[in-house]
Amino acid sequence: MPIHLAGNNYGKSRVRVVKVTRGAERHDLAELTVNVQFQGDFGRVHTEGDNSPVLPTDTMKNTVHALAKAWNGSRIEDFGLELAAHFLDGNPPVSGVRIGIARSQWIRLGDFSFVRGSEEKAVTEVAADRAGSRVESGIDNLVILKTTGSAFEGYKKDRYTTLKETSDRILATALTARWIYTGAKIEFNSCREKTRTALIRTFAGRESPSAQHTAYAMGEAALNAVPEIESIRLSLPNKHCLPVDMAPFGLDNGNEIFVPTDEPHGLIEVTLRRG
Amino acid sequence: MPIHLAGNNYGKSRVRVVKVTRGAERHDLAELTVNVQFQGDFGRVHTEGDNSPVLPTDTMKNTVHALAKAWNGSRIEDFGLELAAHFLDGNPPVSGVRIGIARSQWIRLGDFSFVRGSEEKAVTEVAADRAGSRVESGIDNLVILKTTGSAFEGYKKDRYTTLKETSDRILATALTARWIYTGAKIEFNSCREKTRTALIRTFAGRESPSAQHTAYAMGEAALNAVPEIESIRLSLPNKHCLPVDMAPFGLDNGNEIFVPTDEPHGLIEVTLRRG
Amino acid sequence: MPIHLAGNNYGKSRVRVVKVTRGAERHDLAELTVNVQFQGDFGRVHTEGDNSPVLPTDTMKNTVHALAKAWNGSRIEDFGLELAAHFLDGNPPVSGVRIGIARSQWIRLGDFSFVRGSEEKAVTEVAADRAGSRVESGIDNLVILKTTGSAFEGYKKDRYTTLKETSDRILATALTARWIYTGAKIEFNSCREKTRTALIRTFAGRESPSAQHTAYAMGEAALNAVPEIESIRLSLPNKHCLPVDMAPFGLDNGNEIFVPTDEPHGLIEVTLRRG
Amino acid sequence: MPIHLAGNNYGKSRVRVVKVTRGAERHDLAELTVNVQFQGDFGRVHTEGDNSPVLPTDTMKNTVHALAKAWNGSRIEDFGLELAAHFLDGNPPVSGVRIGIARSQWIRLGDFSFVRGSEEKAVTEVAADRAGSRVESGIDNLVILKTTGSAFEGYKKDRYTTLKETSDRILATALTARWIYTGAKIEFNSCREKTRTALIRTFAGRESPSAQHTAYAMGEAALNAVPEIESIRLSLPNKHCLPVDMAPFGLDNGNEIFVPTDEPHGLIEVTLRRG
Repeated sequence: MPIHLAGNNYGKSRVRVVKVTRGAERHDLAELTVNVQFQGDFGRVHTEGDNSPVLPTDTMKNTVHALAKAWNGSRIEDFGLELAAHFLDGNPPVSGVRIGIARSQWIRLGDFSFVRGSEEKAVTEVAADRAGSRVESGIDNLVILKTTGSAFEGYKKDRYTTLKETSDRILATALTARWIYTGAKIEFNSCREKTRTALIRTFAGRESPSAQHTAYAMGEAALNAVPEIESIRLSLPNKHCLPVDMAPFGLDNGNEIFVPTDEPHGLIEVTLRRG
Repeated sequence: MPIHLAGNNYGKSRVRVVKVTRGAERHDLAELTVNVQFQGDFGRVHTEGDNSPVLPTDTMKNTVHALAKAWNGSRIEDFGLELAAHFLDGNPPVSGVRIGIARSQWIRLGDFSFVRGSEEKAVTEVAADRAGSRVESGIDNLVILKTTGSAFEGYKKDRYTTLKETSDRILATALTARWIYTGAKIEFNSCREKTRTALIRTFAGRESPSAQHTAYAMGEAALNAVPEIESIRLSLPNKHCLPVDMAPFGLDNGNEIFVPTDEPHGLIEVTLRRG
Repeated sequence: MPIHLAGNNYGKSRVRVVKVTRGAERHDLAELTVNVQFQGDFGRVHTEGDNSPVLPTDTMKNTVHALAKAWNGSRIEDFGLELAAHFLDGNPPVSGVRIGIARSQWIRLGDFSFVRGSEEKAVTEVAADRAGSRVESGIDNLVILKTTGSAFEGYKKDRYTTLKETSDRILATALTARWIYTGAKIEFNSCREKTRTALIRTFAGRESPSAQHTAYAMGEAALNAVPEIESIRLSLPNKHCLPVDMAPFGLDNGNEIFVPTDEPHGLIEVTLRRG
Repeated sequence: MPIHLAGNNYGKSRVRVVKVTRGAERHDLAELTVNVQFQGDFGRVHTEGDNSPVLPTDTMKNTVHALAKAWNGSRIEDFGLELAAHFLDGNPPVSGVRIGIARSQWIRLGDFSFVRGSEEKAVTEVAADRAGSRVESGIDNLVILKTTGSAFEGYKKDRYTTLKETSDRILATALTARWIYTGAKIEFNSCREKTRTALIRTFAGRESPSAQHTAYAMGEAALNAVPEIESIRLSLPNKHCLPVDMAPFGLDNGNEIFVPTDEPHGLIEVTLRRG
């Protein structure tokens, strides 16, 4: 049977850019990492070595820098849409463009100075083709923890089960969230803020019988709070904090001393949708 | 519009295990990192907090350890198939199981001693449901470099293009490969070795007019070499080594001195299939 | 010439512990990573294989967990002093103990919930022997950036110099600071806060003719603000943000668009002392 | 009490360079990461903002690239000595230079192609001043493991000791070694190879009653094998592989199934010297 090219894409990853918006009295700062990916009619590049349709990935990087100059520094989704439109316009062989953008946290110290915030990132992925575009935004690595209000009981046991049921455990996660907007003309920043608040409040405020139940409640709260979102996906690693057995030391732990662990970790994923 | 659970999965990630097979005259060693994911009928866990169908992820970890004892230490695909079958058997609500396994490199020093190899990993992902199973295997992070036999010329230019055409550049990548087997009763280790050899030989031996062309040729060589594979996906970050401009120092670089860079990097992805 | 043991130390690294202090109305949280190192009369362990003087490093870990129970969760320096005293008391062969502690940032969300702060760590290293103890505290990875008020001009040039002088550049660093206290009975938390504030204010507020001058001014400000400190060491990687040359695109950068880089980076280190 | 500058140094870290030596029939490859640090009479840079004695760290980077062109690609110690001499010659305020070099592993595939080896690095640090130079070389991250021939018994117990004595455990480490040469005109590469072989053979071949005893024996073997070395320091993290308790599953582990852990880990350090 003959072999054929069933799929291909190419682009530039980890294009970094800092944009300083220089107001008279104070400066604003945006630090982004951008990925660009093209799909399209590039078969002869692969099979014949004809590079004529290939815009170099180095040019993609330059384009990110150049268009960052015109961008107003506010909504990463707008920047993604502008990049996608630019690339589709100028490259007939391209059928689809994906632009991924992650924004790092900088917290203002003074008019011209900043301190790095947490490793949580605001992210977006704009997928655009000749017919239109779809904006998926989200959060990476929102690390949250509650010291009570979390239990895990009544689960299935088999011959390999050694876990003890608990009515009061630490629940900690490094949340990844992705939500799809109903359109491309949206107040993305206020929607982001409302979504994030709904996620955090539900995590913190609601009794948790399982990470699954909490994940579902978080997604539901986000969809209820933000009508501009049509669906949401959440990925919650369960960053276990294991209580230390202090009986051998003649001490009672009292639910106070834990060992946080990075591996292994539980991983809970849900997608919620309207309709 | 009502909100519903459109998708869910849960499991344990980064379960680590070392298995020592203790022969009389020498020991063998396997170091694995295993991920387990369940899909299925878990709606009421999410919406009602009923944990009765939930096998704890801690039990998944224990099961990996327990079944590692019976595994013979050779083919990670077999271990994945055994884990998947075990979990499907014992958990009626589960419709699908995915087992991911990555094996680290240890190189024998003596009968009972080993030195760590490269960060290349042999990986597999077994996806199994009530109807059957699919085995996708692969390689993560195979870092390869050629010092000549790579060009990039004749590409499209636009107003943001500054890249110089070159007929002789370094080509370096950290290859990710994934191939799907035609079945589950396969000599996985010899197929893996033949696939890996075909990929490396093509990278090293074939003139490269572009990373795309090289990626396609590599995939084609693998499919030609190993009939047990029905398709293959390759992901090649282009780990640029930039020639240093030595003219300001009054020196001629002579294509000898380069700066290797981690970011930004090109990213080329292809899927090849028979038929 | 005979070979001899000229130095030895052993201990446990990366002991992690989370302490929840469970008040009636709200909980407090401390997440620490602790290192323990013993020095002393352990020659025969090395040369004769006699383990009788060796307290296992596993016991060091357990001791960190056990003593965390009694610690009040406030000052990491106190915890370090308590650990050091405990180990010296119980282990006659030990001549010196070093306890390193790093505290991760958690920011309160609610009475029982927290969100991870930045990767800045509050750290201490307590070095204790039979004669007394020394407390060195500090900060790891305080990432700060100013968008103006930094120049670099008038430096030495040689045949390999291509750097352009600039009167207005971004200055960014990931500060490591270490300061030595004059004693062990100190209000460590308020001293830490005053030191950190002095460092940040000086970085942000003072014109910078070089990273060296800024580093010195920061150290001087800390020593002036906190008499309980006898010396301070600062290490400032110069995390370069390189202005993008937009002339090839027909654009004027206007000091707005930069590429942040991780490597290579400048590294500036100073130690300031009283007297 | 007045405040003074008690110490200062500055330089460039993580300067990366790839050198291709282009023979007619095959190419050689060296990938290095270089650190440069200057000490000297730079007080007025810090206190007065006078940059006239400061060679920019960007120039240090350029110099590494320029001198890499003349270097023959073989011994990193020679390259370090050449860089140090160059910087001392051209910079009168500099009293001392430290050059650190780490070489990455590339394994030959063909005449013009290479595959990445392990993350073990060959390293050197050349410290030079107006009076002379000292060469310290070493190895970073040599990960080695033995499946038997390691015990840990007869150690001290206290109220927090829970560790079980064992006569047969896995011993694994990621060795860091540093040795000081007796001079600067040495066959560095053959000395390195002999030292590395002595370390590995002793680790693999000698019964281990403790990591301390093994560390000492490794250092002693290196000093015995290589007279050009006057002292050696070894740092051995004890990368614990914990046997899984399979009794709850009704299985006997049989010393076959282990969980490798990254944290916490023991840390054993020794220095051995002649005389």
